[in-house]
Amino acid sequence: MANIGFIGLGNMGGPMAANLVKAGHQVSVFDLSEVALAHAVEHGAQRAESAVACVDNAEFVISMLPAGKHVAGLYLGNGIDAGLLEVIKTGALVIDSSTIDAQTSINVGKALAQKGIDFIDAPVSGGVGGATAGTLSFMVGGSDACFNRAQPILANMGKNIFHAGEHGAGQIAKVCNNMLLSVLMVGTSEALQLGIANGLDPKVLSEIMSKSSGSNWTLDVYNPCPNVMPNVPSSNNYQGGFMVDLMAKDLGLAMDTAVHSQSSTPMGALARSLYTMHASAGNGKADFSSIFKLFDKQS
Amino acid sequence: MANIGFIGLGNMGGPMAANLVKAGHQVSVFDLSEVALAHAVEHGAQRAESAVACVDNAEFVISMLPAGKHVAGLYLGNGIDAGLLEVIKTGALVIDSSTIDAQTSINVGKALAQKGIDFIDAPVSGGVGGATAGTLSFMVGGSDACFNRAQPILANMGKNIFHAGEHGAGQIAKVCNNMLLSVLMVGTSEALQLGIANGLDPKVLSEIMSKSSGSNWTLDVYNPCPNVMPNVPSSNNYQGGFMVDLMAKDLGLAMDTAVHSQSSTPMGALARSLYTMHASAGNGKADFSSIFKLFDKQS
Amino acid sequence: MANIGFIGLGNMGGPMAANLVKAGHQVSVFDLSEVALAHAVEHGAQRAESAVACVDNAEFVISMLPAGKHVAGLYLGNGIDAGLLEVIKTGALVIDSSTIDAQTSINVGKALAQKGIDFIDAPVSGGVGGATAGTLSFMVGGSDACFNRAQPILANMGKNIFHAGEHGAGQIAKVCNNMLLSVLMVGTSEALQLGIANGLDPKVLSEIMSKSSGSNWTLDVYNPCPNVMPNVPSSNNYQGGFMVDLMAKDLGLAMDTAVHSQSSTPMGALARSLYTMHASAGNGKADFSSIFKLFDKQS
Amino acid sequence: MANIGFIGLGNMGGPMAANLVKAGHQVSVFDLSEVALAHAVEHGAQRAESAVACVDNAEFVISMLPAGKHVAGLYLGNGIDAGLLEVIKTGALVIDSSTIDAQTSINVGKALAQKGIDFIDAPVSGGVGGATAGTLSFMVGGSDACFNRAQPILANMGKNIFHAGEHGAGQIAKVCNNMLLSVLMVGTSEALQLGIANGLDPKVLSEIMSKSSGSNWTLDVYNPCPNVMPNVPSSNNYQGGFMVDLMAKDLGLAMDTAVHSQSSTPMGALARSLYTMHASAGNGKADFSSIFKLFDKQS
Repeated sequence: MANIGFIGLGNMGGPMAANLVKAGHQVSVFDLSEVALAHAVEHGAQRAESAVACVDNAEFVISMLPAGKHVAGLYLGNGIDAGLLEVIKTGALVIDSSTIDAQTSINVGKALAQKGIDFIDAPVSGGVGGATAGTLSFMVGGSDACFNRAQPILANMGKNIFHAGEHGAGQIAKVCNNMLLSVLMVGTSEALQLGIANGLDPKVLSEIMSKSSGSNWTLDVYNPCPNVMPNVPSSNNYQGGFMVDLMAKDLGLAMDTAVHSQSSTPMGALARSLYTMHASAGNGKADFSSIFKLFDKQS
Repeated sequence: MANIGFIGLGNMGGPMAANLVKAGHQVSVFDLSEVALAHAVEHGAQRAESAVACVDNAEFVISMLPAGKHVAGLYLGNGIDAGLLEVIKTGALVIDSSTIDAQTSINVGKALAQKGIDFIDAPVSGGVGGATAGTLSFMVGGSDACFNRAQPILANMGKNIFHAGEHGAGQIAKVCNNMLLSVLMVGTSEALQLGIANGLDPKVLSEIMSKSSGSNWTLDVYNPCPNVMPNVPSSNNYQGGFMVDLMAKDLGLAMDTAVHSQSSTPMGALARSLYTMHASAGNGKADFSSIFKLFDKQS
Repeated sequence: MANIGFIGLGNMGGPMAANLVKAGHQVSVFDLSEVALAHAVEHGAQRAESAVACVDNAEFVISMLPAGKHVAGLYLGNGIDAGLLEVIKTGALVIDSSTIDAQTSINVGKALAQKGIDFIDAPVSGGVGGATAGTLSFMVGGSDACFNRAQPILANMGKNIFHAGEHGAGQIAKVCNNMLLSVLMVGTSEALQLGIANGLDPKVLSEIMSKSSGSNWTLDVYNPCPNVMPNVPSSNNYQGGFMVDLMAKDLGLAMDTAVHSQSSTPMGALARSLYTMHASAGNGKADFSSIFKLFDKQS
Repeated sequence: MANIGFIGLGNMGGPMAANLVKAGHQVSVFDLSEVALAHAVEHGAQRAESAVACVDNAEFVISMLPAGKHVAGLYLGNGIDAGLLEVIKTGALVIDSSTIDAQTSINVGKALAQKGIDFIDAPVSGGVGGATAGTLSFMVGGSDACFNRAQPILANMGKNIFHAGEHGAGQIAKVCNNMLLSVLMVGTSEALQLGIANGLDPKVLSEIMSKSSGSNWTLDVYNPCPNVMPNVPSSNNYQGGFMVDLMAKDLGLAMDTAVHSQSSTPMGALARSLYTMHASAGNGKADFSSIFKLFDKQS
């Protein structure tokens, strides 16, 4: 049983904190939203009055925030509030599960190290469903020692826990995976629509490709064509799942990463443009498999 | 045991015919190449002096030719030789396993039907290895009756036998699958290279993505990064496997199909341009996973 | 003054034939549409009862048809009607101004040559406005002699008359130009929208780029952003001009050409996918500069 | 005659400073490179021992640096040296001609304003040739008053001086223009290569397209196909001109800008991937028109 400070109780952070409470940890929580705080308290967490109060005395600090600037501001200070690096006790382990740019993760890790505080970046995949069920995947960047130390805590919130490499590597692994996922989704959508436009039944074509060299995660568990699979967003008017806006955000991070390393990613870049176009046309809140509709033939 | 006429004894057709002999069929063979013919005779096939002689008396006629014009010329005539539709006996079943445009398959099927001859298009995937081992996949277009009639014959040459739909549907299914495969290969190559350029170990990243939503056939059995997997072309200097030139040809068919049905396929079209560029740079005979090198960072 | 047979009196062919009449030629016309025929007769052309009657006695035969199959059917026969190559008199010059695949142009040219009939492919650009005003551009494929012979006739219908090369070269030149045009239009749209999204005035940005290295035909005379220029389709709700459907058709021909020559055209292929997508979303009848809207930011 | 402090004497900054001297200004210069400083002194500039000394007493401060971090470091401080904003005299006008991200320009402009110092971002196009000849184009972001005040100084170094909008707008205009330029160059290269592969003479095709709707800056003055035009890089083994590495850098800025404004730029993104790929293959120092070779058909 550990003392844990948890900051950021949104759609993902809320159920993650609840799972830590359920596992028997002492969990102190903080969020700017009163509603989110109240919800966490109902699940047995202890309300902190500030981020500083939240991490006071914690062995583990976990954060789940929207973007790199929030993470940098929280730990390093933002010109108004001092950073938590002044407050977190020496020897504590900070686990940042936000999906942000790797450079910020590296910078935060380095600054915390100078204060004797451990750090891993540990972005997740698996969505709100996975956060609630405790079946998230974690992609971890940090030392072996920190990875080993974090594992039992992460295991209370997730199922697959991967060690990707040093600081920032968790973010890089996530960005690579999600960029590839977007390409799988668009490519599968195109292939199914090409088949449909030429008279094939999407169920039959999905079956054939999923047993052939076209096999991929989207065909296996997340078919973008309505009514090929039950219980997926495409069969529920593209409600639920992983929002187009979030995929567009992750693809923005992928482009930042590619520009930073001077990497050529033509498919990933095309996917970003298509997802951004799709979001701008009013589909930002729909599931990301709705990109299938971009290839509909209405005329 | 059936009387089979087999026309086209190339890298694929040769071992396919041999497997039919091995299964106990009476197999008459024809090819313009003396070497190919001699090779088939060694495997127990009977040499025919012409395409006409080859199909004379056959219950099943199987063809494995390079392009639509060869298939149309063979069956419908080419202005010099009469088409086999004048010769094949009524009630026979023609199985064309060439990978060609669907329109030619539909035209040939229709013309043969007028002579009382059955037809299916049955392009394959699985490469020379699958042809030799008898583990090809067949994607079949034609009626239920013809599909059922062909199945025991196809089962002597392959393992997965899919019924895609009516005449031409086998070709469409193959073109959709291979277009998707090309997108998976390029997308996976980009994602791995982006990770490598940012310090990740390609083995670790492959492992993470193959267990996450980036999972796809290429990560599972055909990793394009050298030395991540044993016994794949990328670990053997991109020798063997499925040639870039053949992928470029299949993507040309995909574009023909997309133009014909006025379908939008941005990823597939990009894959065609990249594969064509890669072939033009001198990599046409390398395995198609060598597209990975297009994203190498040499400077 | 020449005897001219003119076949195909659509939006383009109608005014082209009228300009030939105006120039003093004897023009016999044919079309399947009674309305089109009547219209041409009003302009002084002579109505023929059939294609055969139309070309009977003509020194020059001009055709303006929708696709390669119509041109091949007209001149070479279509299995029902005999081709005009049996009827056109030896020594006549056939001018096909249809925009079709180069291979059909080459085939028709070759077949006519065997009958002693001259041929040029002479597709046009300039739209209905140019056809009416007699200011079309012609891109001609054929021998020097035929080009010289055609020039005075073409000069009655157009202003710029280019000799692109041998048979088919007119089609290739047109397809290259229109593929490039589509890239200019999409690229200019993206650049303007990127500027607008970052606070720039599209008029100011258009002015800057048109005087800098971003200068191109679309910025100069056909700005896709509403209200930057008067008297262009974008300032008239994208009415008039060159329809998205026609650009999509031309880009289909470009893809056919690229597949045939195994050429890599990533930008052209992307433009085709975007224009096809735009047409499928219901914009097929709008001007092709409406692709600008694909990059609108509505959310 | 004005007192000018000029910081950054590279390939561009050196000749720009020389032109200011030639116009009769009192020019104090600074650079970290002794060679660059010595060269400027030869042209009549006065050597300053530090950036601080350089701007001391200057009415106008001009900077020409490689990237946003250098500009921010110079004016705002970098943690080691204090920023020049502490030193530059109130009422001076700072002209930053570096090509950097707009956000940095905006931040620097705001910080300087708080000290009563004026600021414009004024990136240039025209290359080393334009810098030497004094024929650069300037794209200026800043107030009308600052623009007017800067104009006579800029006129000593350039010919076209555009007012793009407020702070940062100069950078945005440049990034939009250069993104469009890259699309023109790739699109023109593809179109010319498609023509060549289908038998056309690139001179003839260039002539036709430059007089048709494919007309653009690259066809007019910078043809990428060797030996179509004299005195362009393509006719000189792609030496000189605007380096691939610099185009790749500018396209990286374009992607940053597009991600920041959530803009969809499929063509620009594709151009970035192709230029980055081309640079990685060892062509970074060649002129950017060498992208033409990517579409060569060697096999």
